[in-house]
Amino acid sequence: MRDQACIVGIGETEYCRKPGSGMSTLALQLKAAAGAIEEAGLSAASIDGIMPFPNVGKAEELAANLGCENLRYAATIHMGGAAPVASLQAAAAAVVAGMANYVLIPGGWNGYSGPRVRQTVSSDTASIPGGTIARDYYLPFGMTAPPQWYSLMARRHMHEFGTRSEQLGAIAVAMRKHAQQNPRAVMHGRPMTLDDYMASPMLADPYRFFDCCLETDGGSAVVVTTAERARDLPHSPVYIMGGACGQPYPADEITNRRDIFRTGLTIAAPEAFAKAGVTPTDIDFAQIYDCFTFEVLQQLEEVGFCKRGEGGPFVEGGRIELGGELPVNTHGGLLSEAHSLGIGHITEAVRQLRGEAEGRQVANAEIGLVTGWGDFGDGSVAILRR
Amino acid sequence: MRDQACIVGIGETEYCRKPGSGMSTLALQLKAAAGAIEEAGLSAASIDGIMPFPNVGKAEELAANLGCENLRYAATIHMGGAAPVASLQAAAAAVVAGMANYVLIPGGWNGYSGPRVRQTVSSDTASIPGGTIARDYYLPFGMTAPPQWYSLMARRHMHEFGTRSEQLGAIAVAMRKHAQQNPRAVMHGRPMTLDDYMASPMLADPYRFFDCCLETDGGSAVVVTTAERARDLPHSPVYIMGGACGQPYPADEITNRRDIFRTGLTIAAPEAFAKAGVTPTDIDFAQIYDCFTFEVLQQLEEVGFCKRGEGGPFVEGGRIELGGELPVNTHGGLLSEAHSLGIGHITEAVRQLRGEAEGRQVANAEIGLVTGWGDFGDGSVAILRR
Repeated sequence: MRDQACIVGIGETEYCRKPGSGMSTLALQLKAAAGAIEEAGLSAASIDGIMPFPNVGKAEELAANLGCENLRYAATIHMGGAAPVASLQAAAAAVVAGMANYVLIPGGWNGYSGPRVRQTVSSDTASIPGGTIARDYYLPFGMTAPPQWYSLMARRHMHEFGTRSEQLGAIAVAMRKHAQQNPRAVMHGRPMTLDDYMASPMLADPYRFFDCCLETDGGSAVVVTTAERARDLPHSPVYIMGGACGQPYPADEITNRRDIFRTGLTIAAPEAFAKAGVTPTDIDFAQIYDCFTFEVLQQLEEVGFCKRGEGGPFVEGGRIELGGELPVNTHGGLLSEAHSLGIGHITEAVRQLRGEAEGRQVANAEIGLVTGWGDFGDGSVAILRR
Repeated sequence: MRDQACIVGIGETEYCRKPGSGMSTLALQLKAAAGAIEEAGLSAASIDGIMPFPNVGKAEELAANLGCENLRYAATIHMGGAAPVASLQAAAAAVVAGMANYVLIPGGWNGYSGPRVRQTVSSDTASIPGGTIARDYYLPFGMTAPPQWYSLMARRHMHEFGTRSEQLGAIAVAMRKHAQQNPRAVMHGRPMTLDDYMASPMLADPYRFFDCCLETDGGSAVVVTTAERARDLPHSPVYIMGGACGQPYPADEITNRRDIFRTGLTIAAPEAFAKAGVTPTDIDFAQIYDCFTFEVLQQLEEVGFCKRGEGGPFVEGGRIELGGELPVNTHGGLLSEAHSLGIGHITEAVRQLRGEAEGRQVANAEIGLVTGWGDFGDGSVAILRR
């Protein structure tokens, strides 16, 4: 599978925090999808595969609105924020196996002007991260919002390894710094210091306000095809060297796992590196799904950029900033660019590998890594090259 | 992809119509899945891929209950009754691409003792066949039940091609006849004549009571792996020669399609035959998704067993019965065995190709075809060989 499939088009809407932007989640994704299809030099009619995120219903909603008349591959990965990157490898397999020629992966939502995440209390277990466990054991006791769930893992890491708030802050500061070089970022023009971070209100100990990702409106999308078909298209293809995904066990519990830090990435990361034939030292930049600061630290450990327990020191001293040893989330991430459910991490990786990242370009970027993370530890990873 | 993946295990619960059977949809699927895993000679721990049907939520519900600790591939095909067969090709691609070693595809539901199909009126568009179109334009006007939706296509076929009720009846009679050779069938021991069929009450013209599939409780499941891994397992593998799926356009409308008979099978069937390297004349038996009688006739045309408009005469004279030219639904199908959402068509094909179909065995069965159909014309097809 290595290098047999690639990303040939990316599209994004404006990212914003505006009440009443008037765009539904479907409309945002359609706009981004249309942009990605056009950027790829394709027509909607040629898109014959769609991997919809669960928040827009089924693929036919997208197909009917875009005009994809020959839809012959449609599948949904139900892994929350891990879904987009997990979909990349499934899309790669689909085009290589001939199940589709051009697969669209759209994402995003009206996370600011529409229903907020913390209001997602539903009897539909399929829509709740953690499913029945969360519905029956977390929600009734007031644990209804993601910062509450995920702060447990951060606190445990602090307890076991001495990780400090200033280290989580270093992550938030790095993302914000990168956003200053990204005009699309919602936090562009709004720099932040470590003092600002430490002064922000505590929401769910140890998570402060600035440990949490943004709630924004926005959509983004990518188009995947075979390396062979990519030759006829306008942009330099970005090759999918290797990808993998995994789920912790039991997937839908945080508190009852034998090892709280054994996430889906524990399964996925070594598999992706083996498929790609590279190691963490070959990676020029990483786009790490950053729903909260600690999740970046955790994933850097899981992927193997440092050992378990060493993530705190690793993120300090500018190592994950532009110009550092491993620039992370060069666009600003969910923390400072926007929350398009992780597709934005892929589009930024494509920009970096095309050399189109302007003021935040990583010099000589050849190989990048992108992760997805969601639903209490589902993990996905893709290794991309120019 | 041809012959590189195969089905190595099948499992089924009892099929029944009992109020208060006490089995949830999840429990039924788990029981069938455990059976399929055991029949394949595997342990639950070795199952690292699951393709859940949407009615059980996410893969982790199944993984946690079965004990699949290393789940690294999970995807859901949202195509209603076309999903199980569409999942077969996705599972084949997954194992061939190394995304998983053993993929479980479970199905079924408590369709008798639980909520009935005609009661599925929900604001959740993802759960309604036809999505927003059905919600906004069909349901408010009293078109809430599948026989109402699908009878439109049957009536149109009668109008255009002169298809007659007796021909739909021939399909119902053939399925019932086959069920007499299948002790698992709910209609085993309850034969039916064409006169019985014609005397049954009209529900949604031209659909009579006996044009409609059964509402039953039951689960079934299959396990897919690579041809190489299959060599170490106890049963003769059933090879996936070729598979494909497709969606009509617009997928979520019946009444507004330019061509009401252009379904997903129009896209999928030629693709599957091309992949498999065979033609309709090479097929020894067909398991056709039979939510209603006419859908069998329609699919026989779409797959290419006869030309469009000729399905009526084709199904007459015992041609689709055991001993006929093309035995169809040798287990009795959804009409007379049980409604496990289409997985039962796959398990029966496996039994036929293993030579384990006992009194209903098709002599010298070498190549079989299975279809899935759902959500207003999504179609899927797999060609299997012993």
